[in-house]
Amino acid sequence: MKLYDLELSGNCYKVRLFAALAGIDLDIIPVDFLAGAHKQSPVIDLNPWGELPTFTDGDLVLRDSHAILVYLAQEYADDKWYPDSAAARGEIQQWLSTSANEIQHGPCDARLIDKFGYALNKEHSLVVSERILGLLEVHLSSNDWLALGQPTIADCAAMPYIGTAHEGGISLDPYPNILAWIERIKALPGFISMPGL
Amino acid sequence: MKLYDLELSGNCYKVRLFAALAGIDLDIIPVDFLAGAHKQSPVIDLNPWGELPTFTDGDLVLRDSHAILVYLAQEYADDKWYPDSAAARGEIQQWLSTSANEIQHGPCDARLIDKFGYALNKEHSLVVSERILGLLEVHLSSNDWLALGQPTIADCAAMPYIGTAHEGGISLDPYPNILAWIERIKALPGFISMPGL
Repeated sequence: MKLYDLELSGNCYKVRLFAALAGIDLDIIPVDFLAGAHKQSPVIDLNPWGELPTFTDGDLVLRDSHAILVYLAQEYADDKWYPDSAAARGEIQQWLSTSANEIQHGPCDARLIDKFGYALNKEHSLVVSERILGLLEVHLSSNDWLALGQPTIADCAAMPYIGTAHEGGISLDPYPNILAWIERIKALPGFISMPGL
Repeated sequence: MKLYDLELSGNCYKVRLFAALAGIDLDIIPVDFLAGAHKQSPVIDLNPWGELPTFTDGDLVLRDSHAILVYLAQEYADDKWYPDSAAARGEIQQWLSTSANEIQHGPCDARLIDKFGYALNKEHSLVVSERILGLLEVHLSSNDWLALGQPTIADCAAMPYIGTAHEGGISLDPYPNILAWIERIKALPGFISMPGL
């Protein structure tokens, strides 16, 4: 299995983190993002979206971090990370959607603006961040993990751009339950970090 | 099963559409969105996010349209809508993420601005829309359906805000393959529409 990877990308880190926690061996292929290598062969041939992560397992190609988490968990991991019941899958999917939507366009966008100079609306990213961090803080005040009362791919999907929110100028100090959740993830066997986390 | 619903919401329509196509009976409960009923009891007690759709099946509560699709498909529908293999689930998940991310913040945001007066950035929504519609058009030039060569919950997730893009001032005339895909969905047995589609 090949992961076309950018070390500084939280979306790529979601996959690296889960693979490390679940003991799945990936062939990590660094892609020179600043040189635009994600818009060139071989990445663009595999993934017309020209984005990272891009993943292959034999003939299968996946272009989205959450899709890769779902695939790896169902195919290669202990069932506990993505239990095979409709209710569990639904509960986890809520957080995959939240990661693709509010977390991507809140703390992730704020970081893209501050750290990488993306031409996005900082004020909007802060409004989205404040709402989603507030909802997360309440959820984590009575839950140790995002879903099912145990670590799942939901935590791997949501944590990277929350844990690097300070790189977008967002302090997590007002959110003690979020900070405690990040520490719980960091204490999991096999945990690996990313720059800035 | 109860669906707390808003007829004009594409996210609610994703669920109504899939339930109709898959022959799943839902108890549809209209919520007076303009009066703010989604921020009041009983919706806010079930869903602290105060959003629609909100869904219950016995004790299970789900707050996200894609999570509801995953749950209904796995629990109540023919396997063809969400086949139980890791590769199929991964391929479909790509489009659930695209729906929560680019489609939500492209054509959906454009419609929220034009039709409902939301204070979002129209120019940004048009840039996101042009990119995602271009990628979809290319994908659908060699695929009849988004995933697996057959209708799945991916089509139910992605189509509603593409098919109502004109309500955000976006013409689909430059995208004949997208228009043909929408017509294929409309021709499926059990299809139901929504206002504006």
